[in-house]
Amino acid sequence: MEAKNLLRYTFLLLAVLLILFTFSNLSSPPSNKSLDCAAHSSPCTSKNRFQTKNSDHINKPTRRRDRDHSSNVPHHPLDPLTVTELREVQRIIRNYDLFRNDTVYALHSVDLEEPEKRVVLRWVKGDPLPPRKASVIARAGGASHVLTVDLGSGEVTRHETGHLSGYPTMTVEEMASITWAPLADADFNRTVVERGVDLSDLACLPISTGWFGPGEENRRLIKIQCFSMKDTVNFYMRPIEGLTVLVDLDTKQVIEIVDNGRHIPIPRANNTDYRYSAQDSYQRLTKPISLEQPKGVSFSIEDDHLVKWANWEFHLKPDPRAGVIISRAMVRNTRTGEKRGVVYKGLVSELFVPYMDPTDAWYFKTYMDAGEYGFGLQAMPLDPLNDCPRNAYYMDGVFAAADGTPYVRSNMVCVFESYAGDVSWRHAESPITGMEVRPKVTLVIRMAASVANYDYIVDWEFQTDGLIRIKVGLSGILMIKGTTYSNLDQVNPQEDLYGTLLSENVIGIIHDHFVTFYLDMDVDGSNNSFVKVNLQREYTKPGESPRMSYVKAVRNVAKTEKDAQIQLKLYDPSEFHIINPTKKTRVGNPVGYKVVPGPTAASLLDPNDPPQKRGAFTNNQIWVTPYNETELWAGGLFTYQSLGDDTLEVWSNRDRAIEDKDIVVWYTMGFHHIPCQEDFPIMPTVSSSFDLKPVNFFESNPILNTPPNFENDLPVCRADASE
Amino acid sequence: MEAKNLLRYTFLLLAVLLILFTFSNLSSPPSNKSLDCAAHSSPCTSKNRFQTKNSDHINKPTRRRDRDHSSNVPHHPLDPLTVTELREVQRIIRNYDLFRNDTVYALHSVDLEEPEKRVVLRWVKGDPLPPRKASVIARAGGASHVLTVDLGSGEVTRHETGHLSGYPTMTVEEMASITWAPLADADFNRTVVERGVDLSDLACLPISTGWFGPGEENRRLIKIQCFSMKDTVNFYMRPIEGLTVLVDLDTKQVIEIVDNGRHIPIPRANNTDYRYSAQDSYQRLTKPISLEQPKGVSFSIEDDHLVKWANWEFHLKPDPRAGVIISRAMVRNTRTGEKRGVVYKGLVSELFVPYMDPTDAWYFKTYMDAGEYGFGLQAMPLDPLNDCPRNAYYMDGVFAAADGTPYVRSNMVCVFESYAGDVSWRHAESPITGMEVRPKVTLVIRMAASVANYDYIVDWEFQTDGLIRIKVGLSGILMIKGTTYSNLDQVNPQEDLYGTLLSENVIGIIHDHFVTFYLDMDVDGSNNSFVKVNLQREYTKPGESPRMSYVKAVRNVAKTEKDAQIQLKLYDPSEFHIINPTKKTRVGNPVGYKVVPGPTAASLLDPNDPPQKRGAFTNNQIWVTPYNETELWAGGLFTYQSLGDDTLEVWSNRDRAIEDKDIVVWYTMGFHHIPCQEDFPIMPTVSSSFDLKPVNFFESNPILNTPPNFENDLPVCRADASE
Repeated sequence: MEAKNLLRYTFLLLAVLLILFTFSNLSSPPSNKSLDCAAHSSPCTSKNRFQTKNSDHINKPTRRRDRDHSSNVPHHPLDPLTVTELREVQRIIRNYDLFRNDTVYALHSVDLEEPEKRVVLRWVKGDPLPPRKASVIARAGGASHVLTVDLGSGEVTRHETGHLSGYPTMTVEEMASITWAPLADADFNRTVVERGVDLSDLACLPISTGWFGPGEENRRLIKIQCFSMKDTVNFYMRPIEGLTVLVDLDTKQVIEIVDNGRHIPIPRANNTDYRYSAQDSYQRLTKPISLEQPKGVSFSIEDDHLVKWANWEFHLKPDPRAGVIISRAMVRNTRTGEKRGVVYKGLVSELFVPYMDPTDAWYFKTYMDAGEYGFGLQAMPLDPLNDCPRNAYYMDGVFAAADGTPYVRSNMVCVFESYAGDVSWRHAESPITGMEVRPKVTLVIRMAASVANYDYIVDWEFQTDGLIRIKVGLSGILMIKGTTYSNLDQVNPQEDLYGTLLSENVIGIIHDHFVTFYLDMDVDGSNNSFVKVNLQREYTKPGESPRMSYVKAVRNVAKTEKDAQIQLKLYDPSEFHIINPTKKTRVGNPVGYKVVPGPTAASLLDPNDPPQKRGAFTNNQIWVTPYNETELWAGGLFTYQSLGDDTLEVWSNRDRAIEDKDIVVWYTMGFHHIPCQEDFPIMPTVSSSFDLKPVNFFESNPILNTPPNFENDLPVCRADASE
Repeated sequence: MEAKNLLRYTFLLLAVLLILFTFSNLSSPPSNKSLDCAAHSSPCTSKNRFQTKNSDHINKPTRRRDRDHSSNVPHHPLDPLTVTELREVQRIIRNYDLFRNDTVYALHSVDLEEPEKRVVLRWVKGDPLPPRKASVIARAGGASHVLTVDLGSGEVTRHETGHLSGYPTMTVEEMASITWAPLADADFNRTVVERGVDLSDLACLPISTGWFGPGEENRRLIKIQCFSMKDTVNFYMRPIEGLTVLVDLDTKQVIEIVDNGRHIPIPRANNTDYRYSAQDSYQRLTKPISLEQPKGVSFSIEDDHLVKWANWEFHLKPDPRAGVIISRAMVRNTRTGEKRGVVYKGLVSELFVPYMDPTDAWYFKTYMDAGEYGFGLQAMPLDPLNDCPRNAYYMDGVFAAADGTPYVRSNMVCVFESYAGDVSWRHAESPITGMEVRPKVTLVIRMAASVANYDYIVDWEFQTDGLIRIKVGLSGILMIKGTTYSNLDQVNPQEDLYGTLLSENVIGIIHDHFVTFYLDMDVDGSNNSFVKVNLQREYTKPGESPRMSYVKAVRNVAKTEKDAQIQLKLYDPSEFHIINPTKKTRVGNPVGYKVVPGPTAASLLDPNDPPQKRGAFTNNQIWVTPYNETELWAGGLFTYQSLGDDTLEVWSNRDRAIEDKDIVVWYTMGFHHIPCQEDFPIMPTVSSSFDLKPVNFFESNPILNTPPNFENDLPVCRADASE
């Protein structure tokens, strides 16, 4: 038995290592040289790694080598911490009183502490950089600590603790290692084996517990659920249903095992593997098609992070929590050359993904992916040629491991120009003018986070007409539930399956996705106002007109935050303008941008339901708050197990003045997802978007004088790359 | 004075000829040979006409010559009438009793009378074609006539008259010639000259009058408004405000001239011309980018109209009223090869564009572009390289002139594969599986109608995962209003401008656009049911769960039409399934497609306002009716001056049974448009879309086994076309 257990543990070790890599292809290299991703991380050397023999025939930006980040230096006040700076933070932290003398600690976040906004706005290239600081969130001695590390002085200049509910984002290391914990429990191992799952086939996931009352406070909790990896990489389709292990995240001790699903078979593995290599046959439905730019791309990236394209300029950086941060987005007046601000800072602030099954193994699945898991930490390297087109440029993330060691997440963000064959503007008035048509070319910033099963593709798409489209695509794999049913005819019509029977013994549970964006708008200056332009039915007076009614636009400037808590209504519509009340166009309109909502969904949960209290930032589709540097994460700085006492809703209900102030707009995009069989075993991408669109920002159409395509502009292509 | 008048009339003739061409590059060639568009129509020989010297290096489909349609024969029961058939219809009509003996008549529509649906469904390639018939709408003797012409027998087999309110779609010829009418009136000429507009600079538009009560019944009316073309092709920006001429469309007599705007200056011409050739400088914001398919396109078009691409097959034809008709869209199961129906027939049924200004010169502007102007008649030739990418194939329309003579509208529709760099599906689970990502390639069918100032780009986009996205883009030029104001500070805040001051003396009037689609869904068979899958908040019982609430999907099968009159609600959401109740998947779900609404707007006009009665088909976003071949045009067969007694709403309120029937789904996409300065002098494209999406139609993800892109698949491109 001892030998057998040893064998088991060896298998388990392997399995757990695999799971560890499920959450990150983390590398903590000992030397500068080994920061090169390709040397340390398996995905970097797969077929997906961009390589070509025909370097003369492709665009420059993709012909990159794995970058060596060890000698990076910051050039811009908003540049992320470099490898050197992260090492210095690590050193300073190690020597800080709190962490000396064998104290066990973990760094849950090490990120640039951005200089004050006024300092950044004043800074111009050539000026010395403002003091570089790191914001560090650490766990030690059962407490969460928020520290500021001053890289200039080498000192910890701020240390706060204990004043906030909830816990920091999990570290990648503990997400992986906590899945070991149940294996120390003999009951757990026995029930797994009794379900017919070999322990060597076990794959387990760390599932945030949410918060459901006082019984779940005062310690960090997590629930572990497991799957069978036998005969498929798509273990998500093979749940050990009803088996939930509650574990203390700090002590790694099993608190409770709930085992309710013994009668439920593990769904079969066949037809679940989605890999190209695992298909017994494949279908090539279309011939190759490619976006080609033989004269090269039209953008440049200065000093690693400053993107310049067409009439746009902005700072771009990967972020462990938000994924990607766009800063200081400015659009250039192409006639005068003047650069005018649009967005000071934009990012994914939080996600909320409640599942709609109140039963034991499911009720707590109410994920907040950014604050609990780290949206950027879960962003895998992008697959060149497939995640992004061939003309893409890739940017790496440099993050810190739990011990502070810097590591590189290569190819985390891509930047490319897109052309779908669409039209930027047109008019046909032949033969007076013939056809005047302009093709539409955009610049896309993309990252994709794989938060366990789900894949979120986040795009910031810049248009030459001044519009910014922010788009989220959902793909990946459903979180499914095992069931005894193999056909709907076995189900009593009165029974609620909480979802759709997708395959034999597989139910796709109904769930929502909400993605809340933080948009610090600085429209032609920092002080802006939020104007609701309401469209209202007006009646004509008797005899005034043959028309009874028309629609009138009524402008209401929001004075305080509650004026700007917006629930969208199809039959009471508004436009949502962010204007600069002190700047007017030639004919007197205030310059502005508008938030143009796209398809969305609202949360239907009761506002007092614990998950909805924590996810209260989804109670409106739009909110506007006065700028406050501490109000960045809509679910609170410490989202994990938070009580919902530090959300955007709490802040907004303070009802502060927002007129002619530096304001932040929050937009939430929602999806209801009733799964269908097409989502099995992997989901076709579903997307939604919303726009930031100029509204009297320009004096006239800013792309009036752009040329059309002419035949001679376009490339000449041959059939394949083998010359 | 006589000589001067003669000179004036010569200029007028020139101007009016230009306007005539504004509405159509109509050619009525005397011989077969001259059907070639390039020989007769100026836009066909412009720079936009696709030409290349490097024919070896471009894809086949675009390397087309102007097609000679004189020898076309029909191959499919749904193929449009050919040149030969249209000539035969012309001959039969000429000899029909009603039109003999010098009767003045005009053919307002000559179109294929499609065979009964059951006949089409039974027909397979190789079968003889069902009898070919034409449906003809004619005006003669002050009445509208609906005729069926049997091409086999050479007989008129149906002749109906007088039983419907309203009038037929205007002919292109009368739209052009009616703009002459005011010039016969000395008062009109005098006021134009007094406004400082030379008669030779005059451009006039024929504006449908709508219907506003009994005073406007029993004769065909139209209103003419005019503009100055001096110093700009963009005469829309230079209105002679307040001058409205009411004309009898049949007699061409001026009934009334209203001249209210003498104090309003004509806005200046500068900065209004949008032509590339008219810019004093231009800005090239991006380097060339192109969609390249060096191995050729992946679609074929058999027998001129049957499009086959990837797993899709459908019949495509241009239509004078609808623009484009998609028929018999079927998707192939890539494993079994079985073709399964999705859409029997889909088209733009009607548009409704009410302006929101109740004053004299504006209240009647409540366009219904398909039924009044002919959405297809207004579709100009597309501009290769700009309206569609280089890899596009172009399809011509063959229509009949008012005298029945066939003519060719070349390059009216384009077909191309699109790739924007997006992702079809993905999952990253490295290193267990690495990244598995599939690029998303789609097939787009596009036409663009320029209904005077506005340009509508209509796309049907087919995806390999079974989704059809239907997209409408709005561009072109605003219908603007002259004003005395040159700055907002001159305006009393209490005054309603009914829009936005866009430039000196130019107001962009608020308006809506509604586009109503007819979707005869045949999901895996003709008999379908409409199921509203409502998402409802459910409360848990005390003690049942730590969760208070969750969201439950409740299915309601619509029994009758009123059950399926849908107004969308964000906080009471539903999915809208069209299922085949007799076909189930392996695990027992009914096979279906769902209508997925996109961003939309609802009409806010009073339902009893005359324009809204006529546009009552916009009172819901979704309707479902039982299939009835006479119910195709949502605003009625005779939309022009209709009283609103033959709309989709009237039909739907009959509340007929729709469960397990052959049903038609109607979807209305809406836009509120508050103009902004960026819309001046030409509007950046604004788009919206909705989807038809498989929901348990396939047993699983239908594109699971498609391959990713590999480097060697992609083309090698050189910088330009000059070798």
